[in-house]
Amino acid sequence: MRAPQGSVELTSVTEWDEGTARSVQDSLATEEPLEIGIGDTPLTVTMRTPGHDLELAAGFLLTEGIIESPHQIAALRLARGKNSAKSNLVKVKLNDSSFDSKDLQRNFFAASSCGICGKASIDAVRLRGLHQPDRGFRIDPEVLCRLPEILRPEQAVFSRTGGLHAAALFDAVGNLLAMREDIGRHNAVDKIAGWALLQGHLPLASHVLLVSGRGGFEIAQKTLAMGIPILASVSAPSSLAVKLARELGLTLVGFLRGRRFIVYSGEFRCIPAGSRIV
Amino acid sequence: MRAPQGSVELTSVTEWDEGTARSVQDSLATEEPLEIGIGDTPLTVTMRTPGHDLELAAGFLLTEGIIESPHQIAALRLARGKNSAKSNLVKVKLNDSSFDSKDLQRNFFAASSCGICGKASIDAVRLRGLHQPDRGFRIDPEVLCRLPEILRPEQAVFSRTGGLHAAALFDAVGNLLAMREDIGRHNAVDKIAGWALLQGHLPLASHVLLVSGRGGFEIAQKTLAMGIPILASVSAPSSLAVKLARELGLTLVGFLRGRRFIVYSGEFRCIPAGSRIV
Repeated sequence: MRAPQGSVELTSVTEWDEGTARSVQDSLATEEPLEIGIGDTPLTVTMRTPGHDLELAAGFLLTEGIIESPHQIAALRLARGKNSAKSNLVKVKLNDSSFDSKDLQRNFFAASSCGICGKASIDAVRLRGLHQPDRGFRIDPEVLCRLPEILRPEQAVFSRTGGLHAAALFDAVGNLLAMREDIGRHNAVDKIAGWALLQGHLPLASHVLLVSGRGGFEIAQKTLAMGIPILASVSAPSSLAVKLARELGLTLVGFLRGRRFIVYSGEFRCIPAGSRIV
Repeated sequence: MRAPQGSVELTSVTEWDEGTARSVQDSLATEEPLEIGIGDTPLTVTMRTPGHDLELAAGFLLTEGIIESPHQIAALRLARGKNSAKSNLVKVKLNDSSFDSKDLQRNFFAASSCGICGKASIDAVRLRGLHQPDRGFRIDPEVLCRLPEILRPEQAVFSRTGGLHAAALFDAVGNLLAMREDIGRHNAVDKIAGWALLQGHLPLASHVLLVSGRGGFEIAQKTLAMGIPILASVSAPSSLAVKLARELGLTLVGFLRGRRFIVYSGEFRCIPAGSRIV
């Protein structure tokens, strides 16, 4: 798979190898700031890998709870900042003029009248109207185990730089529907969210999201915002991601390696009845 | 090494292993929000692993450019939020009452009059007065290669949960001076920064910072804020971290594995003259 333009930079570096040094060429994952603004109001600046910037902005708006439908977006365009040679600014125009920049404040701030804690963070997600994803969706555990292998050859930038996170969307039989890479774990997921939003695919009620990094609270929250019933990771989830998944009925899978994985929540979607031993 | 209290949580999970499922106990890295406030003004909420919270808050103030010296801190205490059973709030009182919450705005916003781009981000770091770390410091490359091995047995929480990032501070001969773990890469580095600030050890002019994750722009910026001359990582740096390191004279090492590493910037500090082959 070809890497998006601008996502990799070549540079000369020095390799030290068992006592000797030599100059070699190395590929680096590009990191550049992207500003997302609604009208003339700057909303956020995120350090991201260029490519799929409109999807990133649209996905950010969705997963942060600012919009719920593509119809709320009147215009979405990539622009250059003042005097900047690079297009590092996405300007969004919303149909709904009721946007209040205070909405952007961290969800836990909204819930902070009851104290900053994990419980309040989960309550804030619930208050946003995010609820249990489709209970009818099932996946064969053997299909789940194959997903990392299917993803690997598609990771265009990672294979050259070793520096990127990936998020990938699969259907129930393991077809890869979309894959995005970014230096930021959250950005890779937001790019998937923006792709689904702009394509009109939401909610993703019979899909699995596979992420290359850890499954933390914010990744679980973003998964719920897309309506995805299964979040899988090759690494460990956090305590708060597990609590959120259990309270909102998300299936959370970790340490997906070889023919083995751990289910932290919602095992009914991926563990067939009768396969349990005592 | 013992994990700080509250940094690990036990839970029952389901393990799927080649066709069979069984219940097992698993350790999770704790993730809980921490609010950092100056006086009654909330400054930020970060998802962190509890433990060393005062260091995290102090380090955040330092590496974000809000304070430069421990003498600017009049008081630093851990508090409970309203109705919260957990201490998830650090309240800071500064001697200098000139703090303006707008200072917290992302450095690139400060520089955005010239356009949001990597160049502006680097200029913003320069504008903060961060300059080249000590040019006289050297480390033997064989010592550098041993640092990951020295760190490994000290990673108390990681070894149980697989879910944490570590940041560790070493001297020139490989003595481990401090190690902190956190679910957030930035938080682990800020905890080291806070430890050094509160102990009066800044600047860390003859030290190496080893991080378990990738070396991105913000990690490089935090390293410079401590005056540390060498940032090493077992993984890949980003393009912007390399540019920042080259412009400000930081030695940046990546892929530190076995007896091999890559130097992206400032090789004079870790590659002995005469070891280069053509």
